[in-house]
Amino acid sequence: MPRIGIGTDVHAFEEGRDCWVAGLHWPGVTGLAGHSDADVVAHSACNALLSAAGLGDLGSNFGTSRPEWAGASGVALLTESARRVRDAGYEIGNIAVQVIGVVPRVGTRRAEAEAVLTAAVGAPVNLAGATTDGLGMTGRGEGLVGLATALIYQVATA
Amino acid sequence: MPRIGIGTDVHAFEEGRDCWVAGLHWPGVTGLAGHSDADVVAHSACNALLSAAGLGDLGSNFGTSRPEWAGASGVALLTESARRVRDAGYEIGNIAVQVIGVVPRVGTRRAEAEAVLTAAVGAPVNLAGATTDGLGMTGRGEGLVGLATALIYQVATA
Amino acid sequence: MPRIGIGTDVHAFEEGRDCWVAGLHWPGVTGLAGHSDADVVAHSACNALLSAAGLGDLGSNFGTSRPEWAGASGVALLTESARRVRDAGYEIGNIAVQVIGVVPRVGTRRAEAEAVLTAAVGAPVNLAGATTDGLGMTGRGEGLVGLATALIYQVATA
Repeated sequence: MPRIGIGTDVHAFEEGRDCWVAGLHWPGVTGLAGHSDADVVAHSACNALLSAAGLGDLGSNFGTSRPEWAGASGVALLTESARRVRDAGYEIGNIAVQVIGVVPRVGTRRAEAEAVLTAAVGAPVNLAGATTDGLGMTGRGEGLVGLATALIYQVATA
Repeated sequence: MPRIGIGTDVHAFEEGRDCWVAGLHWPGVTGLAGHSDADVVAHSACNALLSAAGLGDLGSNFGTSRPEWAGASGVALLTESARRVRDAGYEIGNIAVQVIGVVPRVGTRRAEAEAVLTAAVGAPVNLAGATTDGLGMTGRGEGLVGLATALIYQVATA
Repeated sequence: MPRIGIGTDVHAFEEGRDCWVAGLHWPGVTGLAGHSDADVVAHSACNALLSAAGLGDLGSNFGTSRPEWAGASGVALLTESARRVRDAGYEIGNIAVQVIGVVPRVGTRRAEAEAVLTAAVGAPVNLAGATTDGLGMTGRGEGLVGLATALIYQVATA
């Protein structure tokens, strides 16, 4: 019996920060604001996974009441989210993520990003990109959006 | 054979209105504008369910041409949407909803909300939350967004 | 084993352009800007399909580096996306699309649109609509958003 989940994550650009998106460092691209690396791709994938399993969200799992996760990378949070979903009795089918925004252009390093994210989850993670024709927060270059969905399966128990 | 659906719902905050989100009343939180209770969580879940079954959307099922549903609560619409999906020959796998916005902080009453929504649907409904780092309509506190996905199954017929 | 995908597409309105949305021409409605017909429904469905199969996105499949697809209709791109997904070894379960915006009112021609899109894909495509209560880019009438999800299946090989 598959179960479905969905999740977004949004961060604002902030001059002077390194840019980490989809588990990769993007030299020369303005970074995203946040206490963590603000990787909207990894974070939205976490939200979709946790959502599918009914385990809450990034805030309830790794938020300010869990100081041991402060400053953890998006990939570390994704690895841990996948572990928690499996601990709850599920196997992971796949995760699909779309990055909405102008930069970084994730299509230029898609295979590399998918390899990093897939290794973190232990199941296929696909990455795609889209812009908004200059409209809205991403069109004005204010921030970046990650939009993810996940499919998981209840593991049969003996 | 599972089928997938997706749906959003957006309402603007309006001073002086009671706040109903995720089937719960939120005392002290500004409410959302609308002819109904404007419960973006229940409404987006309806849209995702109806979408999966190819039954249209909130507007075509409960809109102004269906006055008998005027003023119905989000939970009542969700109960009726689930009934219509089952009447069309489907069983419901699960629904996942993410609330995007700053208030109410759904994580503080997640279990309570999930119990109400799950009872309405007769299948698991998971609730999660996210903010947008101050960006866009929800970041400016103008409104609240519900984003939902649903998985349903065609029931084998004799 | 099903796999899931997700995708959006956004285009701005542009006076003097014909409006093509959901594979249909909408007389009297302002069209959307773009090199193509800017059909956000067909385009978001393409993105969801390609995402599910891990085949990238509209840009990597049909973008400026693929001039043979310049000016292709959204329905032509959707037909070709479905072909590429099947060539990669998948069958298509269904696609669900929500149009977010005020006009065109897709609910008035839903059956017609679903027939065109379903024929293009060779699997059920469901169409629904939603507004944003006057908020954000679509509420201000600046553009139109397509939001889609797709379910596909790996075909058993001999």
